[in-house]
Amino acid sequence: MRITIWNENIHEVENEKVRAIYPSGIHSVIANFVREGVAGAEVRTATLDQPENGLTDAVLENTDVMTWWGHVGHHLVDEDVVEKVEQRVLAGMGLIVLHSAHLSRIFQRLMGTSCNLRWREGEDRETVWTVNPTHPITQGVPHPIVIPNQEMYGEFFDIPTPDELVFISSYTGGEAFRSGCCFSRGKGRIFYFSPGHESYPVYYQPEIQRVLLNAIEWAYQPQISAIDTSASFESKPGWFQSSD
Amino acid sequence: MRITIWNENIHEVENEKVRAIYPSGIHSVIANFVREGVAGAEVRTATLDQPENGLTDAVLENTDVMTWWGHVGHHLVDEDVVEKVEQRVLAGMGLIVLHSAHLSRIFQRLMGTSCNLRWREGEDRETVWTVNPTHPITQGVPHPIVIPNQEMYGEFFDIPTPDELVFISSYTGGEAFRSGCCFSRGKGRIFYFSPGHESYPVYYQPEIQRVLLNAIEWAYQPQISAIDTSASFESKPGWFQSSD
Amino acid sequence: MRITIWNENIHEVENEKVRAIYPSGIHSVIANFVREGVAGAEVRTATLDQPENGLTDAVLENTDVMTWWGHVGHHLVDEDVVEKVEQRVLAGMGLIVLHSAHLSRIFQRLMGTSCNLRWREGEDRETVWTVNPTHPITQGVPHPIVIPNQEMYGEFFDIPTPDELVFISSYTGGEAFRSGCCFSRGKGRIFYFSPGHESYPVYYQPEIQRVLLNAIEWAYQPQISAIDTSASFESKPGWFQSSD
Amino acid sequence: MRITIWNENIHEVENEKVRAIYPSGIHSVIANFVREGVAGAEVRTATLDQPENGLTDAVLENTDVMTWWGHVGHHLVDEDVVEKVEQRVLAGMGLIVLHSAHLSRIFQRLMGTSCNLRWREGEDRETVWTVNPTHPITQGVPHPIVIPNQEMYGEFFDIPTPDELVFISSYTGGEAFRSGCCFSRGKGRIFYFSPGHESYPVYYQPEIQRVLLNAIEWAYQPQISAIDTSASFESKPGWFQSSD
Repeated sequence: MRITIWNENIHEVENEKVRAIYPSGIHSVIANFVREGVAGAEVRTATLDQPENGLTDAVLENTDVMTWWGHVGHHLVDEDVVEKVEQRVLAGMGLIVLHSAHLSRIFQRLMGTSCNLRWREGEDRETVWTVNPTHPITQGVPHPIVIPNQEMYGEFFDIPTPDELVFISSYTGGEAFRSGCCFSRGKGRIFYFSPGHESYPVYYQPEIQRVLLNAIEWAYQPQISAIDTSASFESKPGWFQSSD
Repeated sequence: MRITIWNENIHEVENEKVRAIYPSGIHSVIANFVREGVAGAEVRTATLDQPENGLTDAVLENTDVMTWWGHVGHHLVDEDVVEKVEQRVLAGMGLIVLHSAHLSRIFQRLMGTSCNLRWREGEDRETVWTVNPTHPITQGVPHPIVIPNQEMYGEFFDIPTPDELVFISSYTGGEAFRSGCCFSRGKGRIFYFSPGHESYPVYYQPEIQRVLLNAIEWAYQPQISAIDTSASFESKPGWFQSSD
Repeated sequence: MRITIWNENIHEVENEKVRAIYPSGIHSVIANFVREGVAGAEVRTATLDQPENGLTDAVLENTDVMTWWGHVGHHLVDEDVVEKVEQRVLAGMGLIVLHSAHLSRIFQRLMGTSCNLRWREGEDRETVWTVNPTHPITQGVPHPIVIPNQEMYGEFFDIPTPDELVFISSYTGGEAFRSGCCFSRGKGRIFYFSPGHESYPVYYQPEIQRVLLNAIEWAYQPQISAIDTSASFESKPGWFQSSD
Repeated sequence: MRITIWNENIHEVENEKVRAIYPSGIHSVIANFVREGVAGAEVRTATLDQPENGLTDAVLENTDVMTWWGHVGHHLVDEDVVEKVEQRVLAGMGLIVLHSAHLSRIFQRLMGTSCNLRWREGEDRETVWTVNPTHPITQGVPHPIVIPNQEMYGEFFDIPTPDELVFISSYTGGEAFRSGCCFSRGKGRIFYFSPGHESYPVYYQPEIQRVLLNAIEWAYQPQISAIDTSASFESKPGWFQSSD
């Protein structure tokens, strides 16, 4: 499995407090536990400041699952890159959308909605509850996950109804949120997971790592569907018999 | 629209504290606001202590939507009555399942699961959040609804994935819950709504009443489907052409 | 209810055979049965050749539900108009997407997928089967609807999994298709319905008209949700209490 | 993975024509390709005529995934056995429900509906179309699968809306059907697949075998959720913190 960990990597460079938590960037921390946790995985990282935002055609064509973290730099991602990532997802690449990437253009385009929500940086504890215990993403995940400090993300979250709702969260302030959501678009699988604010060491929590490892495994398809979705094909009577 | 408000009516008779809140029973309070809120509705009540638990064939045949409140008397409901109510739902009657009726046999049979959950009688405030703002049950409902005191009902709630998830709730203690859930079974519509503990005056809150009025309107079908689901019919070639 | 019937109106002008069926355009036929079938409706039509494609701000702001028929002119619709229609849907306007409008840019943007499918103009009979008999769009609709001649639209249809699947179709040639699909996006409801090829008098069939009238009623929301999805709002602790 | 292939095994014993196709019973054919196709699987068969219908406590406790074929003997299955299988599914066992087992009591109980449909033994060809190409059950499955002769099963199929709809079928006679449906109930996964009539050699088709092998892999959970659904537990404030 070939995995690309994408990160805008702005807070970690510009903000001392964030750098103290993620000195080599959020992407490094994620890449490390993915390397350890996914057997046989080939893991690379890519960041906004690289040529083509680190997502050249060669990188994209050799990525089975991509994780995406972004926050203040959504508008800095090249429009062509967004378009190419979208096409890769529709062609079967898995995409794990992390925390504030709810407002990334790649997520908005795949959803077709604003993806707005309510938020608060404060003292909230978040508890993450499994609502779908047969889902592979929940395997081995404690119920609930407790995150001592996390940015509040609250409803209404303006996304399409998820194909599968996996987690819902509650916050000290009283808000609730659909925090783990699965979607299929074209031939690709997408998972949105809200825990992961840059000011807290959320990605060091083993339970959070377990969710993300499960999500990467779930989003990976060893054999992408052979169905051709690249055009609306005229199909003569009996077209499907010829291949019998 | 012909509406039957069913209640086991045990707490109100046996428990002074509950009687102080609902002196004529929870069913009376619900019946009153339904009479006022649903134009042209014919509203009756039925209780466990009546012959056939108040749900004779005549009552069932003349009910378009039923609301069901039960808690400590689930096992006292006649098995035949449960069977008949189930058949009525499958034939198109709407059913609104209230609070602790999550463990009623009628709900368990229609769901096919245990319907277990976590609970706590305590000091929790519940906030109820809309996650589906296009749903008719949310129309005119504030976001969130705040219930100053309510029994905590928490995940995991062992129900099938709802066809439509309308509300999720958060509690002071940190739990979260899928508190407003729509299902279809056969030709009938079912709505489960968790707020409504007997020890708190929840059914007097106008927002809660609004949800229930919306739910009754949603569960009502002026014209039940003509599809016959009473057997698996042998269907000769061209059977559907004969009626052209 | 204010309804706008949009049509690209190209085949009817350029193709004699189509004009013989729809001499005043598909939009006129639809507008006529909607005027008769929706009590108190204010119905207007709009076409591609009009200024701003007939969809000025004034028209959009005064439309509760829009139906959209397009085929060969998708690329001729002004990009600004597409953007405005999208925003109106997200703000609560209902949208009924008809037949070959599966490839309209408005539908593709709201779906986030290619919306490709398989097709064949030929001798197929289509049968349309209800798979969700509690859904308001099926009310009074025969099971199945038989369309003597209709263009074949077959799977795989590259759309997100519908929130509610209402109809599936079968064709003489052996293909199957999800022909009636409901989606919510933002605060708006969307229904895609595939029957309606320009070369056949499909929109004159009373059963098809019944589906579309039901769909318009379903997509209409008398009271749009008050939830503000226009931005991601910072929400101080207790923000939702202040309005109590 | 421990797999039990259950079969009522009546037609194969009593009907010469069926015996000619499945001389050792449908269960033997299924067991054979499962043994070959699932690496490391421990496969056993069980039939109606055995003590406790072949499903003793020891067998049930040592089964991770069960396939179920039944037709004329649904009422002959011991009620206790049905109850135990249901409890095993709710506790995490996978269940693959085959063809005419749509009317088995185990399936009806888990669904909560009649599970009726339309049917015809005749000359129909069935074509099976993928509508969810990201689903693991579709991996490597041709689109469509063509079954030269198969009993027609047509809508309306009286089941709850599937959690995931994977396949829809079309028949020569014009009917359509939701032929591949996923459900979760409790902690278990269920897949219903309609192809597989006893009078045709459907289970010898490699594409059908591929679907069933995929389904068994999908229904298998290496690690069942640790969430306890056996009761509604009272949960004191902070109960979930103690395990931190």
